[in-house]
Amino acid sequence: MTEQLQTRDAKAGFVVDADAFERFSQVDDVFNRSWWDPTVRDEKTEKFYETYRKPLREWRKARGFRRHDYALRNAAWHVADHFAELFEDIDRRDGFLDPLSALREASTEKEDIGSPEQVTADIKKVSAILGADLVGIAPYDERWQYSSRYSRLSESAKPNEIGEGLDRVIVVGQAMDASWIQTAPSALAGAATGLGYSQDALVLLSIAQFIRNLGYRAVPSMNDTGLAIPYAIQAGLGEYGRHGLVITPEYGPNVRFGKIYTDLPLLLDEPRSFGVAEMCDLCRACTDACPASAIPGGSPSDERYNQSNIKGVTKWTVDGEKCFSYWAKINSDCSVCIRVCPYTRDHSKLSNRVWARLAQGRLRTLALWLHQRSGTADRVSPAEWWSGNGTKVEITPRRP
Amino acid sequence: MTEQLQTRDAKAGFVVDADAFERFSQVDDVFNRSWWDPTVRDEKTEKFYETYRKPLREWRKARGFRRHDYALRNAAWHVADHFAELFEDIDRRDGFLDPLSALREASTEKEDIGSPEQVTADIKKVSAILGADLVGIAPYDERWQYSSRYSRLSESAKPNEIGEGLDRVIVVGQAMDASWIQTAPSALAGAATGLGYSQDALVLLSIAQFIRNLGYRAVPSMNDTGLAIPYAIQAGLGEYGRHGLVITPEYGPNVRFGKIYTDLPLLLDEPRSFGVAEMCDLCRACTDACPASAIPGGSPSDERYNQSNIKGVTKWTVDGEKCFSYWAKINSDCSVCIRVCPYTRDHSKLSNRVWARLAQGRLRTLALWLHQRSGTADRVSPAEWWSGNGTKVEITPRRP
Repeated sequence: MTEQLQTRDAKAGFVVDADAFERFSQVDDVFNRSWWDPTVRDEKTEKFYETYRKPLREWRKARGFRRHDYALRNAAWHVADHFAELFEDIDRRDGFLDPLSALREASTEKEDIGSPEQVTADIKKVSAILGADLVGIAPYDERWQYSSRYSRLSESAKPNEIGEGLDRVIVVGQAMDASWIQTAPSALAGAATGLGYSQDALVLLSIAQFIRNLGYRAVPSMNDTGLAIPYAIQAGLGEYGRHGLVITPEYGPNVRFGKIYTDLPLLLDEPRSFGVAEMCDLCRACTDACPASAIPGGSPSDERYNQSNIKGVTKWTVDGEKCFSYWAKINSDCSVCIRVCPYTRDHSKLSNRVWARLAQGRLRTLALWLHQRSGTADRVSPAEWWSGNGTKVEITPRRP
Repeated sequence: MTEQLQTRDAKAGFVVDADAFERFSQVDDVFNRSWWDPTVRDEKTEKFYETYRKPLREWRKARGFRRHDYALRNAAWHVADHFAELFEDIDRRDGFLDPLSALREASTEKEDIGSPEQVTADIKKVSAILGADLVGIAPYDERWQYSSRYSRLSESAKPNEIGEGLDRVIVVGQAMDASWIQTAPSALAGAATGLGYSQDALVLLSIAQFIRNLGYRAVPSMNDTGLAIPYAIQAGLGEYGRHGLVITPEYGPNVRFGKIYTDLPLLLDEPRSFGVAEMCDLCRACTDACPASAIPGGSPSDERYNQSNIKGVTKWTVDGEKCFSYWAKINSDCSVCIRVCPYTRDHSKLSNRVWARLAQGRLRTLALWLHQRSGTADRVSPAEWWSGNGTKVEITPRRP
């Protein structure tokens, strides 16, 4: 490992045991295991996928799980699903098991892109205006690339190759709608995930096409190809949290990440810490609230609960099997850990920025106490969301 | 014509001569004429399309027309282009000549949607959260449906049918990026159009899928199937302007419109006026600035410049042939009339809301004078946009 990488690892809080470390195979991802692994797959997991894929033949009648809620969740997933299924016939699942495909020709002739400073500024500006809520640059790192992809067709491994020389990873964050997340657990909250993916697909495809139009290479990726979490941290977008999610200063953990591998000579961002490790060390909000008891309350360790955890990395580790079994039980993804996280708040409000400042220093115990008293993490009933009495949803000028 | 329709026409300012009126055929749209009509089609129009469709083989070297500008414009179009070309093999051009296709199965069993008040509120809330910047409900109106579609394959008319009983039209507005529009005319400004369409496609497909998941019918449409302008006015989203565009109170004319035909029993919005007719009567900003002299300075009339204008409607009418010939000349869409329109301003700012209030009443002459003095409609150089010194583009929390 180069010295630069060591320095970056230290800054990012990555503790990797080089001897024990093994790259993660996407075959072992709990979602994929729910297809091929009989210890995970059962009637419930099958029904879980069915509620997303088939026209609402199955649903629960509980609050937040009415047909309206499923109708909206699946509608929010619609565009992401379209891209995912576009090349199913050639055993691709774009954005989830394979990178998003290049959909149009682009230039083969390289444009003069100016200095690395110039092109980095251009890429950040272009990403923002095309719809990225956050953007940062990380170095390509073999360790975070899946050792293999998962083939739905063969129900086994297939190669994970994106080509040589893609030394930079543009990491893009899409904020999810907090008013939906506040209703978690519910099918309605799952709409936040779906729309996050759909918007991510649009943004990643557009940024990648911009790069390709300049004659450079770009491989847009959502959950496929590599682990988004370490890349987002290396891109300086946030710090790792107890729930296994990246906590960003702008949106807390309420963000989806996408990435674009490229050969553009982009300047790297630096990992940054703003007191999250210390806060998560104190706080057990996600541990206590997790309906599946999948988030341990202890210290970071390299213990693996099962094959769905990576080997040789000391960190807070979530039990993916338990997590997903709850999703299968409720027929939707969960997001309770995002709702209850003290960092999930409207950071554009002064009061919340003051809170974040407090959480960053020695008064973090006070910050945590204030958060617990505030009730902001309480579940909003899906009925209230629909009636509009809970969280007000207004059409406001966004880009006037 | 029913009395209700007459009342709505009067409110909307529509002056239609029932004897002279003829539905418009999309075959006569100037974009389609540039394919089949030798009086419009020439080397320049062919090159115009080529710069959008082929990897940047042609471009001008003027400011705002560098390869970076084209690269970004075409990237912004990327997702809209993808949907447009998805079913080209069966002579469809989704979103432009044909409605966006249903991409997934949906429910055939009707859900209990509650009262018309309830479902209207639900649709507006869902549209907003799925990304619509504006939303309103218009009645279906045969007059604004194209008498026929244009077939690229046969270069002639094909039927324009969407089925019976789709009595309501949900009209959706997508704000375009003003910092891009400020650089018009430029290839860079064309990125605002492209991204508007791409986002429109995502939003329309998602809303339509929500409706279909409830067991109702929904036909999502961009430029295809019917005229967006009269529907947007009937949906109460804005008032008709001299440049032939709808001026909205929220974004001025800097908006793209999409629509969804549906059988949901939605409550209608009412057309509204806020002084635009009176202001456009005074103002000649678009007339004076139009590089193609395509926007007359006179009074509304039913005069047609050529077959690309509708018959039997008294209104301000733009000469589409002149307009498009300028686009072909600069290899990009123009948008100068949007840039210079006094209503194109950040209406979330108090000062601009005060201006709009002034523009609404007897002091509109003063409002116009203030606008002319302010220089806000001046072109921002594309180089300034890229360097960030002109209009600042920040990544700000959008949906925290």
